[in-house]
Amino acid sequence: MNDNIIIAVDAMGGEGSPKKVIDGVSLHYHKNNDVFYKIFGNKFELEQLLLNKINKNNFELIHTEDKVLDKDSALEGAKKSKKTSMWMAVESVKNKESDIVISAGNTGALFVISKLNLSMIENIDKPALSGLWPNKNGMNIVLDLGANIKCSEKNLIDFCIMGSSLHKSLFPDEKSKVALLNIGSEDIKGHEVLRSVYHKLKLKNNYDFEFKGYIEGNHIMDGDVNVIVTDGFTGNIALKTAEGTANFITKEIKKNMTSGIIGKILTSLNYKNLMKFKKRLDPRLYNGAIFIGLNSPVIKSHGSTDSVGFSYSLDVCKKIIKGNLINKIKMNIK
Amino acid sequence: MNDNIIIAVDAMGGEGSPKKVIDGVSLHYHKNNDVFYKIFGNKFELEQLLLNKINKNNFELIHTEDKVLDKDSALEGAKKSKKTSMWMAVESVKNKESDIVISAGNTGALFVISKLNLSMIENIDKPALSGLWPNKNGMNIVLDLGANIKCSEKNLIDFCIMGSSLHKSLFPDEKSKVALLNIGSEDIKGHEVLRSVYHKLKLKNNYDFEFKGYIEGNHIMDGDVNVIVTDGFTGNIALKTAEGTANFITKEIKKNMTSGIIGKILTSLNYKNLMKFKKRLDPRLYNGAIFIGLNSPVIKSHGSTDSVGFSYSLDVCKKIIKGNLINKIKMNIK
Repeated sequence: MNDNIIIAVDAMGGEGSPKKVIDGVSLHYHKNNDVFYKIFGNKFELEQLLLNKINKNNFELIHTEDKVLDKDSALEGAKKSKKTSMWMAVESVKNKESDIVISAGNTGALFVISKLNLSMIENIDKPALSGLWPNKNGMNIVLDLGANIKCSEKNLIDFCIMGSSLHKSLFPDEKSKVALLNIGSEDIKGHEVLRSVYHKLKLKNNYDFEFKGYIEGNHIMDGDVNVIVTDGFTGNIALKTAEGTANFITKEIKKNMTSGIIGKILTSLNYKNLMKFKKRLDPRLYNGAIFIGLNSPVIKSHGSTDSVGFSYSLDVCKKIIKGNLINKIKMNIK
Repeated sequence: MNDNIIIAVDAMGGEGSPKKVIDGVSLHYHKNNDVFYKIFGNKFELEQLLLNKINKNNFELIHTEDKVLDKDSALEGAKKSKKTSMWMAVESVKNKESDIVISAGNTGALFVISKLNLSMIENIDKPALSGLWPNKNGMNIVLDLGANIKCSEKNLIDFCIMGSSLHKSLFPDEKSKVALLNIGSEDIKGHEVLRSVYHKLKLKNNYDFEFKGYIEGNHIMDGDVNVIVTDGFTGNIALKTAEGTANFITKEIKKNMTSGIIGKILTSLNYKNLMKFKKRLDPRLYNGAIFIGLNSPVIKSHGSTDSVGFSYSLDVCKKIIKGNLINKIKMNIK
């Protein structure tokens, strides 16, 4: 057990929990033999669900009386008690009993509980919410997705460092190429803070990523860069707009492709190809978000994802620990 | 001629001009009998292109020596001379010889030239760049798309008024439903300026639109609202991110649907249905942008659109004049 990565799992958050969480852990367990799961939740519910699914040497069940609800405000959820599955899962990382924590529950509460329990990485001013976003060649890391509405120069430079370190942890064979999201590619574009960060990184970039300047919204998915940095307001709106556009288009195409009996037959015959597309863009592959900037990263799996999505988020946990994310950030930030 | 709407057309801007502009005017002319086109550009080029395409009673050719280039900076383009086709077209609106002006040329220069020549609507502080964006039920008006990086409360409220007036002019049978783009739907979300506008419009909305509160990026295309207001930085990034996402997805689907010979055959058999989708989302339908806030709106057709797209933008010109856009704004702003 000692060489294993220890993941603290909040089993009680998100739609369909705790069943989807336990099924996700089970899926992950069957593909990995070097992970130990500390599962926090109501033992009466969990014992039924866990029955024989995971070898007893690979998990521990920690009973929790209480849970944070999705409808709780961030502060309500955090203040509820220190006996919620979310609080206790985070606390186990604080106490160094686990390497990393994951929850599919209330995002705001998870953020507050994490900030209350875990200290910041030295010289990082603010933690950020980062996410995965597909591009033509693979995946982008995008941050901040909503933790910080206003960002200083220092914050944005920190985000570049944290984002590229996260990228390197998740995709160790790729070179990190960082860009700032802006409304034009010329160096005079955008607001003052952005221009100042641009000039600082252009003049002197002693970090271990390549700085590619500005990127516009229509080029996020081109694959020319793979770490995209912005403030939390803009990042949140960009991500959600992309989600909304993707949903709209796939629904419209489906509606049109299957209109009329001929359309239905032809589309079903071409099903295999459609499935390839679906697999390529399966939102479960990049569900949720990663809080980064604390002394241990905190993984938020999407509340509405299923057990497969949850198991992908467990993969992210493992890669982050194997990739020494926190050390990578510390080496760059000093 | 006197009852006709008079559109000042800058024929020399954008890719494929002046041919695509003249072809666009010709397409529009054949569907409308109540428009007179004042066409500004090099007469030696234009005369060849115009040959017999449009009845002589429906157009006038105004020779211009010079033109703004796409590569000019906004200021270079504007300062070039007062003899460019863009300057003279805008000037003809200033001199009340035309009702409205359209150009497919340099956006920045068009904005500067318009601001230099046309006065602001009284009590409006800043003009905005607005655009059309498809939604499930029809079209959204979205503004600002990049003219104003920072916006005050007053600016955003002005944008609500201008956006809903534009919506009413273009879609007279619909009710205008206005929302503020934000990172959550709860009233405490977002930055201070946004929250203050929200509370003002919730408390007292004596304008002739329905105020629907906040909208998140993933709901822009749901069709529950049809006027979406934001600052120019956020709006530009949201619009371009949506464009990029749409391009990415349609390319990926095409690639996957037509992979292998069977896929190619099946997709080509289902061509009719695919074309329905393409028509529904044809970017030419909502190309370009509308500068709004000046005493006359200025229509920017997309530089890369074709003659069909240009003719759609001429439709927008006609609807704006028929719909008395400027009066609608003035009645609301006072």
